[in-house]
Formats: sequence, C-alpha cells, structure tokens
Amino acid sequence: MSKLLIVGTVAFDAIETPFGKTDKILGGSAPFIALSASKLGVDSAIVSIVGGDFPEDHLALFEENNINISAIEVIPDEKTFFWSGRYHNDMNTRDTITTDLNVLTKFNPIVPKEFQEASVVVLGNLSPGDQSKVIDQMTNNSALIILDTMNYWMNNTLDELLRVLKRVDVITINDEEARQLTGESSLVVAARKIHEMGPEFVVIKKGEHGALLFNDKNVFFAPALPLEEVFDPTGAGDTFAGGFAGYLTKTNDFSFENMKRAVVYGSAMASFCVEKFGPERMLNLNSKELFNRLQAFKTLTQFEIELTS
Amino acid sequence: MSKLLIVGTVAFDAIETPFGKTDKILGGSAPFIALSASKLGVDSAIVSIVGGDFPEDHLALFEENNINISAIEVIPDEKTFFWSGRYHNDMNTRDTITTDLNVLTKFNPIVPKEFQEASVVVLGNLSPGDQSKVIDQMTNNSALIILDTMNYWMNNTLDELLRVLKRVDVITINDEEARQLTGESSLVVAARKIHEMGPEFVVIKKGEHGALLFNDKNVFFAPALPLEEVFDPTGAGDTFAGGFAGYLTKTNDFSFENMKRAVVYGSAMASFCVEKFGPERMLNLNSKELFNRLQAFKTLTQFEIELTS
Repeated sequence: MSKLLIVGTVAFDAIETPFGKTDKILGGSAPFIALSASKLGVDSAIVSIVGGDFPEDHLALFEENNINISAIEVIPDEKTFFWSGRYHNDMNTRDTITTDLNVLTKFNPIVPKEFQEASVVVLGNLSPGDQSKVIDQMTNNSALIILDTMNYWMNNTLDELLRVLKRVDVITINDEEARQLTGESSLVVAARKIHEMGPEFVVIKKGEHGALLFNDKNVFFAPALPLEEVFDPTGAGDTFAGGFAGYLTKTNDFSFENMKRAVVYGSAMASFCVEKFGPERMLNLNSKELFNRLQAFKTLTQFEIELTS
Repeated sequence: MSKLLIVGTVAFDAIETPFGKTDKILGGSAPFIALSASKLGVDSAIVSIVGGDFPEDHLALFEENNINISAIEVIPDEKTFFWSGRYHNDMNTRDTITTDLNVLTKFNPIVPKEFQEASVVVLGNLSPGDQSKVIDQMTNNSALIILDTMNYWMNNTLDELLRVLKRVDVITINDEEARQLTGESSLVVAARKIHEMGPEFVVIKKGEHGALLFNDKNVFFAPALPLEEVFDPTGAGDTFAGGFAGYLTKTNDFSFENMKRAVVYGSAMASFCVEKFGPERMLNLNSKELFNRLQAFKTLTQFEIELTS
C-alpha cells in the first residue's frame, strides 16, 4: 500500500476571529495536512518536533487516525512552537500577534525507515534547508514531492528555496507569494516562471477564490465552495494540501487528469476546515459528508455545452 | 425570432492603463452589451441618448452588427456622456478622473414599437427610475428582465432601486455591491437576501475571480479565464451581461441549466473584452475564436469524479 510522508510544524495556535477566540489549540501545518489526508484512508507519518508541554491526547489523536507519530520528536525541557493571530472582519486578512519558535529551532528531520519509500511526500511550510534534508533521505526516486512555502523564506533564504525547488514535482503556493517569487502580476505568467524553476506542477491557492493547477500548457481551476459562514480560515491551505496529497497517495496516479481530481478533493476538505476552529471539523468528518461535499462541487462547476466547430 | 432590448449609456471613454492610454473612444454600457450579444447572432436594439458630437461611423458600426439604433436619440446641441479613468498597476482598481453626464441628464427612454415584445431585456447601469420606465413599456409579460446596477444608485436612490428590483428576473451585480446592498459579507447570504428583494436569479460578478449564479438553492460558478495579460478591464462586466443575455435570447430557455451555459458564454465574451481597449476586440471576434475560448472554459473547469455513496 502506498504511503504518505508529511513533514511540517506541530504547534499550538491561539486564534481570534469575529466569531470567537480559542486558548492554545492544536495547530501547525502537519496536523491539518495529516488529518485531512487521513479522511481518505491513507497510511501516513508526520516528521516534526514538539516540547514537553505537548499533550499526550493530541499524539493519541494522530494515532487514532492512523497517522504514524514515531518521527515526532519530543524534547521534554522545551516548549512547543506557538503562534497566535487575530483575523479581521473580512476573514481574508489577519495580524500575527505571537510567533514563539521554541523547540522548532532544534528541528532536524529524520524520516522513519518504513516511510523512506513513501510514494508521496508533503514538505509543509518549513525552512528550505529542512525540506532538502527530507528529500535527501528518500529512497523512492519516483516519489511525488509536494512542497509548500511562504513569503518568509523568499525574503530570508531565497537561494536555498530556489535550490530545493529544483528537486520537487509540485509546489503549492498562494497567489500573492507566486507574484512575489516571480515579479509577475499575471498568475499564468507567474506559474510558467515557477515551472521553469523546477516543479512540473504548480498549484496556486487563492483562498476564497479557489485554486489553479498548472502543468506545462494545461490549466485547471477549482473554486472554493461558496459558504454561508467562514468561521476560522486557519489551516485551510494545509487542509487543501492534505486532501490533494491524500488523494494522490490513495490513487497512486500522478497524471494531470488525476491531479485535477486531487485539487477537487483538496478544495472539498478545505471547505470543511473553515467551519470550525483549528482542525476540529476534520475530526468529526464522515464519509457521507465528504461525498455530499464532492457532489456539491460537481453541481457548482459542471455544465453541458455542445461545441461543434 | 426572439429579440433583445438593451437600455444603457452610449458614451465616450478615455482610458489609461499601465499599457497605454486612449483618446475619446466608444464606451458606455450599451455598446459593450450589444456588441457582445451580436456575436451570438441575435436581433437587438439599443435605447439610449447621445449628443451631436457622436460620430456617424459609431452608429454605422452598430447597424453593421445588426443592432437597431432607431431609439438612440441624438440631441444635436448637446455633448455625449463622457467618462475618463485611470487603472492602477494591479488592474483591479481604478480612479475616475472625469464624469460629464452631459446629454444623459435629458434621457427619457422610449422603447421602439417592434421591441416592446422583446423576449429578453437588459437594463444596463442607469437610474432605477429610467429602468422602471422601460419595464412599463414592455408588452411581453413573460420577457426576461435583467438588471445591472451599481453602488451609486444604492447610495442615492435606494428606495427607487428596491422598487424596480421587485420587477426584474435577474440581477447582475458585483461582489462589493452585493455586500453593500445587503450588509452581508458572505455572498451566499447576500444572494439569498437579494433574491428576497425580487430577482429570481442573482448573478454576482467577481471580476478576475469569476461569476456566481444563484437561484433559490442552486448555485453555479464560472471562473474568469486565466489570462497572460489584462490590457483594459473597462466594459468586461457589460460584455459578460451581453454574452449572458445574448445566449438566453438566442436559445429562449430561461431554466437554471441554460442560465449556467449563459454564464459560461458571458465569461468567454468578457475574456476577449479585456484583451484590447474598449470594445475593439469585440469587433474583430470570429466564431472560430469563440469556439476555441468556450473549449478552453470546458478544459479549465470540467473534471470526472466517480461518486458512489
């Protein structure tokens, strides 16, 4: 059975939105990616690091969802990475209040032996150096490597980022970051330039405006599902990546046609994520709900036009 | 053969974008709507008003495209409505430099007798009072009435706007205006509230982020085609409305399924509009190009997922 390896942060988040606020809850990129992928029934592992303050029941939660935690290093005398932020009324912009890296400064990713042959790898938003170290440890040369990044690494470690980009198959990046990385305002041109940097597939995430998938001359678009209420957007991008990667792991088909389906699965998963704080909604998601949401995506986007030239 | 009636401004525009600037060129809502619809081969008329400075060859241009101009009133001693604006580098925002209403203050719409039975009416962005006067003159009770409006009328003549909304079947409105009209940030909730104001169908235009069609519990989304370059967005919304209305006129089918196709036609026409200044691109558009663009929309959005519950 094909396996999914996930490298990313495991953190505490404290979130404030117009609808309420949380104390320290489970956050970081890896939990969103892994819990989302787990809904597709794949065998996954998280490579990450936490402090002694990280609760046992969070780790148990991963295991209950068939997520291998043997490579989540626990440093007893250190604190877990902590982020807090406040969303504006439009829910599209937020202010970061706190970023305490804590134990994250000691992270040295070690891939568990049984996942060195994983067929899909998600390199969550981390330093390009750490992302490269993970690729070094993979023994499956045909593994699909998916990389997520953000403007912080473009501003601070651009050379390293460009080096690791040469080694990945898929990049997921948001629209503003794609523009920053290339200096191009057109996303079509930006995607082409990023493609030239290495990744064969470029996924540009536009938040509430959906996601674009580019591959050479092919382009596919999936909207975000229009929702009555967006409760908390935190982790939606990672949840998208988890659904995307989970579907590709499960089907083990990396063609453009199948990537389109993976984008739809990612979008469906992200549409659940924003309904509750943190990854809470992922935990209570059943297959019937996922089926209905995928059906809603079809209804939202599919049309019949007879074209005869 | 079913007919399309278009009421709107006929104007001069002077446009400045990062790519260049124009002198006074053909503008206003009605030319974009009519020229777009004309590409679908429908029989249309414009109801509008211009000054003595409006060139004969612009009027001839309408006639060449099978657009009836008998109800474009010419006031010899007055000047044509004039708008000028400058787009910012992102092409999504613009500053209005000049708005000279000129002859527009004397507008009293008179529907030509042979178009009082039109099957589709587009009420372009105009005062709600003038829009109402047009509806009063229609003899076809089952005509589909499509209304476009903007924030100016919400700010200045909201009561009149709410009155005319009760009499229309379809509203086309942009996302910010939908939020303003309803006080709701969620477009799903905003569409429902607008639906309660009268229109059975609500089309929310999101510019480069596409368009949503709502009808009771149904929702359909069409993206804007991702383009290498947006040269001039002026008139894209009206061109969308023209393609939408033109398709509905031609097919004479006002079901939700057919409205979805109309939204795709509207989006395809708008994607051409932005390639040149003003309505220039519409004039040189052939059916092969339209066919290819519709094909590109299918490729962009259509996917196959087997869903078995």
